[in-house]
Amino acid sequence: MARGAMPLRITGERVEALDQTALPAAVRYFEFDSVETVAEAIAMRVRGAPLLGLVGAFGMAIAARTAGPDAATLHSAAARLRAARPTAVDLGRAVDQSLQAALALPEHERADALWLRACDYLACRRAEDLALARRGLELLPRAARVLTHCNTGPLATGGIGTALAIVTLGHERGLIAHCFTTETRPLLQGARLTTWELQTAGVPTTLLPDTAAAGLVTSGQVDIVIVGADRIAANGDTANKIGTFGLALAAVRARLPFVIAAPTSTIDFACPDGAAIPIEFRPADEVGGYGGQRWAPDGIAAYNPAFDVTPADLVTAIVTERGTARPPYGASLQRLLEGG
Amino acid sequence: MARGAMPLRITGERVEALDQTALPAAVRYFEFDSVETVAEAIAMRVRGAPLLGLVGAFGMAIAARTAGPDAATLHSAAARLRAARPTAVDLGRAVDQSLQAALALPEHERADALWLRACDYLACRRAEDLALARRGLELLPRAARVLTHCNTGPLATGGIGTALAIVTLGHERGLIAHCFTTETRPLLQGARLTTWELQTAGVPTTLLPDTAAAGLVTSGQVDIVIVGADRIAANGDTANKIGTFGLALAAVRARLPFVIAAPTSTIDFACPDGAAIPIEFRPADEVGGYGGQRWAPDGIAAYNPAFDVTPADLVTAIVTERGTARPPYGASLQRLLEGG
Repeated sequence: MARGAMPLRITGERVEALDQTALPAAVRYFEFDSVETVAEAIAMRVRGAPLLGLVGAFGMAIAARTAGPDAATLHSAAARLRAARPTAVDLGRAVDQSLQAALALPEHERADALWLRACDYLACRRAEDLALARRGLELLPRAARVLTHCNTGPLATGGIGTALAIVTLGHERGLIAHCFTTETRPLLQGARLTTWELQTAGVPTTLLPDTAAAGLVTSGQVDIVIVGADRIAANGDTANKIGTFGLALAAVRARLPFVIAAPTSTIDFACPDGAAIPIEFRPADEVGGYGGQRWAPDGIAAYNPAFDVTPADLVTAIVTERGTARPPYGASLQRLLEGG
Repeated sequence: MARGAMPLRITGERVEALDQTALPAAVRYFEFDSVETVAEAIAMRVRGAPLLGLVGAFGMAIAARTAGPDAATLHSAAARLRAARPTAVDLGRAVDQSLQAALALPEHERADALWLRACDYLACRRAEDLALARRGLELLPRAARVLTHCNTGPLATGGIGTALAIVTLGHERGLIAHCFTTETRPLLQGARLTTWELQTAGVPTTLLPDTAAAGLVTSGQVDIVIVGADRIAANGDTANKIGTFGLALAAVRARLPFVIAAPTSTIDFACPDGAAIPIEFRPADEVGGYGGQRWAPDGIAAYNPAFDVTPADLVTAIVTERGTARPPYGASLQRLLEGG
């Protein structure tokens, strides 16, 4: 984990989390010392679906140690952690699995077991991210100039990242010449977090407004577009951060590879195609301003979906920790999951 | 001029300009009472290439009235106005033409002649914009839901606007159901100005992050995309505000009409195609922040072109005040300019 940022820092039995809201202005860690500090962190200061799962697992370990290992206390801690961000699937799953695992043990073993479980989870996350990144390296041309979108680095996964780990690992191995990153309105994860992670990892980096992406991609200054995924349907249609679809259209126009990098846990065979993927709409006030600053008139309506769906016909490859799927994706993704 | 915003207000011999930097928070006019107030307005408080031309013409009239009609004074005023924004082509042309016209007259006639000339120029701008908007109405489907980009309303042209005038005039005539507008990073003209102009004109309006445009265009909620142009090459390739090209790619994917609305003065037959159109790059600090707020790390490089070029094969029609060009554009644009 020398490369890039560290969103969780484990020292002995101490867990500290990086306050992502303070980035890039300040690198500030705070300690998880109670269920309440973990819940507040989940609600406010950490983000990224896989990272939230890790934080939930450590939160349950801290609950058992600081509040007590009895069933009532653990149930109450699990409810508090889940409620801090009710829509985070990885968080809810990690908390529930930790709770069930603990309840199956005698009370005096629970605190240690939950701690070991969380540490294992972190180790698995790092190993899975690394496996994915290594697969991704095979797709890079020489001295690759990559465009990416949103934030898919350590700050998102808690490991070494997904799409961005291909860039940072590739840079370590001399395969990456440059990384372009979009601002990623409205929440600006690219401008705030990806730039900082790339700087921290020493990768030559250029930031662009989302509006400049299509022109850049077709200008001859980019060799490959690599992005993450929130959910991949059985046919390869991919939901990811709003703006991804536009990048795919530009890549196809430029005849450049458009690559999705995401763990197999993102593949949802219950969704036959993109039309079945539910799209979350976020608050209107994220559009027309940022932070305390407003630039749009009061009372303006806003269209603010969190994700868009990139149709599978625009996707060159889907890289996972188990291998790389190619079109047609229906059969190819199935083979990956079956370990074929 | 009842509809929408009025960037210049003429009362008797008094000219007031709307301070566009104060929008949308405040609607504040200030008087042009000296060459210096006009120059400061050009540098800071008004924008839009055609509007800057008008302001230059009124600036020369005010120079003759307040500073004097002698050749030395007028030459000095022209130099001051041009220097306030050296890259503004319409401004430079309007100032030079006013200067030459004045110098051809006896000194005592110059102030009145420059004033009449500026008022004529404003009347022509309004008439030309109106002619363009009427042509544009012919392209609208019933109860059209339009997506537009950047700012192409009265605040940009000083008349009734170009692409946005099709929307406001269409709305007056019951042809427009809804207008979607992008934020238009990095300078946010869509979020700050177009929203305000549409609200002022009473058009039902929704603002979206630039990242959401491709998803919206392909979602079935938009019928037509209409944008302006900064320069149109002989073959129809069109330079316009950064982000336009991405909207065109999305419109083509969705099989929707993608329409350019711009006066014939924008057509540059000296440019055979888009590759010959020079693209201005703007300061890096416009990316990674807005106004006094920074969200990117210090020292990050930025890619910040002012324009992109939409290839002619993506453009459904080019609407001008003289008529509408259709592919193949080479011959069609030529016929328009010849009045055919």
